[in-house]
This record gives sequence, C-alpha cells and structure tokens, in this order.
Amino acid sequence: MTEFSVTEFRQQFPILQRLVNNQPLIYCDNAATTQKPQAVIEAISRQLQNTNANVHRGAHYLSAKATTLYEQARAKVAQYINAPHADQIIWTKGTTESINLLATTIGQQLLAEGDEILLSVAEHHANIVPWQQLAERCGARLVILPIDQQGRIDVDKSLPLIGDNCRFLCINHASNVLGKINDIKPLLNKAKQAGAITVLDAAQTAAHFKIDVQDLDVDFITFSAHKMFGPAGLGVLYGRRSLLDSMPPYQFGGEMIKTVSFEHTEFNQTPHKFEAGTPNLTAVIAMAECIDFLTSDLCQQSLRYEQALIAYAYQKLDQIAGLQWLVVGCPDLPIFSFTLQTGHHQDLASYLDSRGIAVRSGHHCAMPLMQALQLPGSVRVSLAPYNTFAEIDRVVQCIVEFIASEQQPSQTAANVTAIQSEHSVSVSGQHWQDIRHRFSQATGWDAKHREIMLLGKALPRMDKAERTEQHLISGCESNAWLKIANQDNDMLTFEADSDARVIRGLLNIILSLSNGKSSAEILAMDFDAVFDELGLMQHLSPSRGNGLLAIVKRIKELATSNL
Amino acid sequence: MTEFSVTEFRQQFPILQRLVNNQPLIYCDNAATTQKPQAVIEAISRQLQNTNANVHRGAHYLSAKATTLYEQARAKVAQYINAPHADQIIWTKGTTESINLLATTIGQQLLAEGDEILLSVAEHHANIVPWQQLAERCGARLVILPIDQQGRIDVDKSLPLIGDNCRFLCINHASNVLGKINDIKPLLNKAKQAGAITVLDAAQTAAHFKIDVQDLDVDFITFSAHKMFGPAGLGVLYGRRSLLDSMPPYQFGGEMIKTVSFEHTEFNQTPHKFEAGTPNLTAVIAMAECIDFLTSDLCQQSLRYEQALIAYAYQKLDQIAGLQWLVVGCPDLPIFSFTLQTGHHQDLASYLDSRGIAVRSGHHCAMPLMQALQLPGSVRVSLAPYNTFAEIDRVVQCIVEFIASEQQPSQTAANVTAIQSEHSVSVSGQHWQDIRHRFSQATGWDAKHREIMLLGKALPRMDKAERTEQHLISGCESNAWLKIANQDNDMLTFEADSDARVIRGLLNIILSLSNGKSSAEILAMDFDAVFDELGLMQHLSPSRGNGLLAIVKRIKELATSNL
Repeated sequence: MTEFSVTEFRQQFPILQRLVNNQPLIYCDNAATTQKPQAVIEAISRQLQNTNANVHRGAHYLSAKATTLYEQARAKVAQYINAPHADQIIWTKGTTESINLLATTIGQQLLAEGDEILLSVAEHHANIVPWQQLAERCGARLVILPIDQQGRIDVDKSLPLIGDNCRFLCINHASNVLGKINDIKPLLNKAKQAGAITVLDAAQTAAHFKIDVQDLDVDFITFSAHKMFGPAGLGVLYGRRSLLDSMPPYQFGGEMIKTVSFEHTEFNQTPHKFEAGTPNLTAVIAMAECIDFLTSDLCQQSLRYEQALIAYAYQKLDQIAGLQWLVVGCPDLPIFSFTLQTGHHQDLASYLDSRGIAVRSGHHCAMPLMQALQLPGSVRVSLAPYNTFAEIDRVVQCIVEFIASEQQPSQTAANVTAIQSEHSVSVSGQHWQDIRHRFSQATGWDAKHREIMLLGKALPRMDKAERTEQHLISGCESNAWLKIANQDNDMLTFEADSDARVIRGLLNIILSLSNGKSSAEILAMDFDAVFDELGLMQHLSPSRGNGLLAIVKRIKELATSNL
Repeated sequence: MTEFSVTEFRQQFPILQRLVNNQPLIYCDNAATTQKPQAVIEAISRQLQNTNANVHRGAHYLSAKATTLYEQARAKVAQYINAPHADQIIWTKGTTESINLLATTIGQQLLAEGDEILLSVAEHHANIVPWQQLAERCGARLVILPIDQQGRIDVDKSLPLIGDNCRFLCINHASNVLGKINDIKPLLNKAKQAGAITVLDAAQTAAHFKIDVQDLDVDFITFSAHKMFGPAGLGVLYGRRSLLDSMPPYQFGGEMIKTVSFEHTEFNQTPHKFEAGTPNLTAVIAMAECIDFLTSDLCQQSLRYEQALIAYAYQKLDQIAGLQWLVVGCPDLPIFSFTLQTGHHQDLASYLDSRGIAVRSGHHCAMPLMQALQLPGSVRVSLAPYNTFAEIDRVVQCIVEFIASEQQPSQTAANVTAIQSEHSVSVSGQHWQDIRHRFSQATGWDAKHREIMLLGKALPRMDKAERTEQHLISGCESNAWLKIANQDNDMLTFEADSDARVIRGLLNIILSLSNGKSSAEILAMDFDAVFDELGLMQHLSPSRGNGLLAIVKRIKELATSNL
C-alpha cells in the first residue's frame, strides 16, 4: 500500500477549495454531514443527464437501465456490509426514518405492556424519541444503559439490565458526541439470549470502517449516506431476512404492493414492501459511486491517516489549559467534544467561524446525554481524512486565542465603556445610530463579529433570579431570556440576557431598536432588513441555531400582548 | 410574450440529446417522472460543491448559508402555490410519503368507527392504500366516487355520497392514467360543509399549471418535485395552518423536537415538527432553481404550446384504427392512455422501446381503475413541452406499424415454423443452440427484439383452462403462467404462456434451456449469464416490469419442489 496523500484526498472534494469569511475553509463538522467527492457529485449529474427514468415501473430502456443501476447500488451496499443478500437492504431517507420504520413496524408488532426497550444514555434523539413515543403507546418502558467514565456504554453495569422483559436493545455503535466505539458484542449477545431484537445505530461509524453485519450478528443496522461522503436524503436499513419478511409495511403506495383493490391489498416482498413510492433514485444510484470511493485504495489508506489525526488532535487539544473533555481518554473516532472553563460553547463556535473554522456547538441532538453530564452543551470538532495536521494546529491556536480574549480584559475596553454608556441613553435612538455606524465601518465578518462580541459584553446582565423559565426564549442553541422591564405610557423597555455572549450582542442590537418604542412601532419594525443592512443576514441562519428568529418572534409577541 | 421555441426548451434538458437503442430518445413517460433541466442539475452540483452543510444545526457560515437557502426554497414554493405562509410547506420525500403522513397523523387522530373516507375510483395506489389500511385500523370505511365517461370524477353522482359521516375527501386533481382535470371545487365545498378534511393529490397537475391553494381553499395539497422537472426524493405537503398545528408529529428524531428527556419530549413547531432528521437538503435547495425554471418566461410560454401538443397528439392517435381510448374525449393534460384491438399493451411498449420511444404500459399503479374499466392494463404516452409534433408523428407511425405487424402473418413465417419445429426437439438442446446462434447474428436491440417476438409467436400456447391462478407468476407487468407439463424420470418438461408476446419470447428462451433438464441442472443454471450472453440484460430491468426475474425464480421454485 502506497503512502496516503492528504493533498490527493483533498483534491477529491471541490468544496475544500473555497474560502469562508475570507479564510480557507476548515471544515470540522463531519459528524453532522461530510463533504462530497467529485466522483459522487458527477455520478448525480450523470444519472440526471443520461439515465434518468422512474425505476421498477417501465419496460423501456431508460427505466430498465435506471432500475438496473438502482438494484446494483443495493447489491453494492449489501456487499460492503457483508449482508447475506441484497434483498436485506432497504433504502430509507436516513437513519432517523430507519428507526421510525422499525418502531412503527416491528416495534408496534411485538411490544406489549411491561416490555422493556433498552437504550444507552448517549443516544441521538433519533434513537430515543421514536422508542419513547412507541413505549407510551404500548405501555412499554425505556431502560437506560449507563456509560462509563470513558464515554462507552458500561458493559458490566448494563448486562444485568438486560432481563427477561427486554424486547428491544437499540444502541449506537458510537455516540455522535463522544466518538467512543461501544463494546457492543456482549450486549448484543445477552440481548439475543433474552430473545430481544437488536438494533444498531451506525450513523457515526459507517464512514470510518467497514461494518460486517454477519460478524456483528445484529438484527438491524442503519446508517445515512450523507455522513459517509454520499448523497443527502438517503439511508440504509439492513435487516435480518426472517424479521423483514414477518414485518408489516411502513408506508403504503406504489411499488410496495402486489395487487390492490378497494377491498384488499396484497403487499410486495422485501425489500420493495418497505419502499413505497418513487424513491430517491438519483441518490441511490450515486450511492454506488460512494461505495466505490469508500473501497478505493485512497480511502482505504485514509483510515490509517485518520488514526494518526485522532491521536494528534487529542494530544494538541488536551494541552489547552481550561479545555474540559466531556469524558476521559482519546476518542476512537475523530469526534472531539469539550467545554471551556472560560467562555460559552456558542461563543467559541462563533469565534472559530469568524476564522473560517466550522464546528458545531450545542446539545448535538443528545439532550439526555447532556443532562447526564450536567452540561448545557459543548463544542464538537469532528474530522474527516481531508483534515490536515496544519488545520488542527490552526484550530488549537484559535481556541487558545479565544480563551485569552475571554480571560483578559478587552483591549478595546474603552469602546465597551463607550457603548455601555450609550446603552443607557438608548431611548434617544443614539445607541442604534452608533451601532449602525460601527457596523458600516467594520468590513468583513471577522470585524463585524468582533463588534457583536463587544455589544455582548456591553449588554447589562439580567439578575440571575430573573433568568427563569418564564422569560426563556425557546429555539436557541444557548439559553436566552427576554422580559419587559419597564413601561412608561406606551413606551416599552426590555431587558435581555443570554449565557452566550454572541447572543447577548444580537440582543443588544435588538434592544437598541426596541427600547423606548411603542408596541405598534415594534410590531412594524422590519428586523430582517436591519440585520441585512448590518451585513449579518448572510452569517446568521434563519434557524433555531442562533435563535435570532426566536428572539424577534418573542419581542413581537411581548409587544402584541402589550397592545 | 415571444413565440415559444421548442428547440430552445429542449436544449435545457441534456438527456434529450442521447440515443436509445441507436435511435434518438423520444421520452413519453413524463407522468412517471420528468427529465431535469441543466439549471436544476447545476443547482445540485453547486450545492454540493459550494454550500454543503447540515441545516438548522450549526452556527457556522456554511450551515447558516445552507439553512438560508433551504428556507428560501420553502418560501419560494409557498409563493408558487400562493400559500399564506412558508411554515405551511412541509418537505416530504414525495407525494406517497405526504399521504402516509396525513393518514398516520390527522387520519389516525380524527377517524372513528363508522366514519367515511371518500376517494375516487381513479386514484393512484398512493392515495388508496394508506387510507385503506387506516380505515381497517379505525373501523372506518372507504366510499368510492365514480367517474363519468369522460374520465372525470362524476360530480352529480358524487355529491350525494358526501354525507354526514364523511371525514376525509382525498382525491386526485387529475388521474395519472386518464389525464382529465377533475372539477374539484363543488366536491371540496360539499366536503367542507360536511365538516370533512380535504386532501388533493396534485402529483400530476403541479408540472402543468400553477396551483393556488387559497383559491382552491383545500386543507392539504401534495405533489412531487421529480414530476415537475425537479429533483428526486422530494415532495411538498401544503397544509392549513390550524390543522398542521393541531396534528401530532409523523416521525420522531432530531430537528422536530424542542426538548428531549427520557421522561418527556416537547415537539418543535410547524413545519419543523414534521421534518425529523437530516432532510434531503440538496434536493430542497435545488427546488428553488426548479421553481425559477417553472416561472421563467420560457416555461410560461411552454404551457400554450403544451395545449397545442395535446390537441395534435389526441387527433393523430384518435385516427389510428384499432386504438381504443380508456375514456371519451381529449385529455386536459398530455397523458394518453389506450389499448389496441390487436396486440398486447406490453408488446406495443416493447416495440416502441426498440425504436427509442419510452412509454409506460401496465396498470400505472391504479389497479382499481383498471378493474373498473375491466382492463388488464394499457399503454400510456405522457408528454412534456420538450416533446415535438414530429415526435408525435413518429410515435403514431410506430404504433401503426406495430398494429400491422400484429395483424399480418409474419413475413418471416418460415423462420417461425423453423423455430417451432426446433422447439419440439428442444430436449436435444438444439433449440437453445439455434436461439444462441440467431441472437449472435442479431446486432442491435431492434434485431434482438424481433427475435424475441418471433420466439414469442413460436411458443405453443397453453390451454386456456390451464392459465389459472395456480400457475400464475406474480410480479409481471403482464400475466404469465408456468407449469411442469411432464416428468420423465428426473427429466422435466415445462409449459408456459403469457398474454404478452414479448414475455412469451422470454419464456421460450427459458424453456429452451430448462426442458429436458433435471431439477438439479435447472437449479445450477445461471440464467443471468445466459441473458447477458444473448445481449438482453441491458434491456431487461431486474424488476417486476418484465417479470424475467419472477419467471426464473418460479422455475427454480418448481425445480426445488421436484427435488
């Protein structure tokens, strides 16, 4: 085997050439989704330009060709995970749908009152909520397997929990937060002995090593194409043949039927029974190319490189003073979750973003794990073999800088004081005019980001006792609070706070526009246009992510209730 | 408005440049799926090469950008169908999933024993089976609205069926088989008066005109992107706000939650409540480009051209002697379904395919309609504005030729006799050797197709009394029968038949290999390799479409049962 060339590997991924916020993109959000190699992108174009037709429906050439490619992709995935037969591969739209399918079909079929569904404390919401809702419907209950200090499912403590009532064991192969590979075999074996159905959520592991379903001897495995360099909107559900055959269908429609009359419908066989409607055939056909990529020499070589990358990143991050790991020890996958002694996780993420580094912060769709760890959230740096040692150095450097900027009194403390004093006269609108001016002078996201952080520092904190559930704004990655502090005739004054400084900065801008205004004026305000003018819109997602929408929504609600 | 240029329109679609079976592709299967304009293909590549990141999850630039594009696409679709608010647009994986979502959420929520779900007789399976299965679970019943001779829902006969027990009216805007636009307003109004929920399956109409949900005043509308020049794996479900808000979620996982603990989960708001897991974000983002295409001057001009195309195609097809329309009168959409007095629908489809013309044959996922029309299936020619008048002429010419070839004694009758006589000595293997030789001489699909048809003619017909359910092979677009006719020691002889000649031809090949063989020999036979050698594999889909797989499977089953 020749030496792995990260340069050659990076060249496969066009997006890595781009700049973000005027800096080279350093993409460290691979556990959320991976980037796509040119071969996969071209496979998608090729399908649409050359062989597009509906599958399993027409006898004409294009349809036959599309169907052949579609079924070849199924066979390729089957081979990749060593499934005994291609019919055991069901295409879903992702891991989430796969688990919902299982809960609704075999879950609903088998569960009765008093039965137990075993999950670990470190599951993704997608492997919690479907089972939780099913348990409520069936009178079953969830049994939660603990993790050890290393962040792996604690086998010794978990084995005794797998008892006679255990009907389903549904666990992740590796947590999307902790990056530790669970020692699943003893758990699967015990569950099997108890007569339980075993389900493995391999969303995080599928990109990192070949899964052998026969070796694992598990009933169901699921993973998502988009987390393994493949297309969006496609998941794989592998199932034991006898179980698939005995399960009812999930969705109903074309393709999954044999005959339909208004009186009775006879269903098709596995796998078609589970694939109602026109599938995401473009993605399926491109998935074959994705498997070719994963099994290429280049990708095979990347796995050893990835191990070196993990060790290096862990060692470098571990040396940062004030960095606190969520669990003990180096992760098995390149997923690094931590918090900082000083500085909020969202502020670090936003600081890194201003330097072109993409990480994720928050609860990572694993709120129960965060509750167990007693954390409101964390930063997650997740890598792929296109990341370089130099990138890790840069990430570490930026984290160190961020910590320093949080610890030291700001170099621009004078500015802060200036803004703070303006804030008290915000009623005059002077504060907003000042913000507008400062943002117009700040060119580039880096500079604008600094302004937001200064505004965040300048926003007077709310009393801790006021930061209650009542004033909490839902939809934020961090916590944010907003209340009407004063009302003088029709004139409203708000107070707001957040545990993330970046959000406090945004709140400061919103308050500079709202304080001293009437309800009617606030309701008429086009906040979007304001953020657009400040040059923030293209950096702020209209999602719960930064909570901007949620904040604006809440201030309008408060204004409405005050009309 | 300038004149529509079909040449310019065709240039948008790269696939139209290709040859099929050495002839220019004439794609007439648009009701199954449309081809994609270069702008949509490029939008997909652009997303993957420039802005790929998970949506609603990260605070970093790429994620914010992807989320913005994702939500802009939602707003664009909302505007396109005149939805009051973008939050009323739910992304699904297609019309089938949309209807399953409705049946499982609001259907399950509202239906009780004795309630009625009203469907028309001309629904697609996707708008039958979900409701049928739900009705079985809830003790509700289906009420079937009839169609008139023109193929539209018979309003006069249907209105009295909308009674006090009607809880859901779920009808198509236009049937995927008949292409007639239903007069839905009186039905929707009556259903609304009865307090029923109204659902419109607009899968077939969305590509052909702008739908105005406020004008229709319908509760739910759904359609699929891939049938309107958009990407695969994406559907749109529009819903009335108050209903969406009161509905339970469909699937559970990330994104659709507000908070999760093992004890309790609080769900997110509409539309996120219905979008669990990482969505098909590539397709969603490309959908914005698709809407731009649909609203472009070029596409707007194409609509008038399409009307002329419909009139021309109807007139030309109507002149073909022996062509029988399924219903009376010119369709409203460019969907033409018919049968022939002479010749099976699958044989016509396969004949057209050999000339590069893609049509669909069979039941078109509307078996109950076929039962009502007392037909085993039909041919469907479905057009888009990239089809030309010249293409219609060519299709008509080929249909006329096919009819002639079916009516006249074959010009190669001598060959048929030769093959027929060979057939009787097939035990010697001579028949198979002859087939092999003839196929090796036949270059091109056109010639091979002729050979198959000759073999089809040569296969002795089974006695009508033998063509029973017992010998029926499931999984065929046409009917096929297979039985063991004789057994001499270990040596098996089969008889087979089909109502489609093309299938009889394939059966003839299979019998030439199997007759006179032992069970063990048949089980060891690699039929795939044989079809590959004959040059058939690339033209035969591994689907139920042509039933090849099903036939091979059945012959092996029969051999096994005889071991």
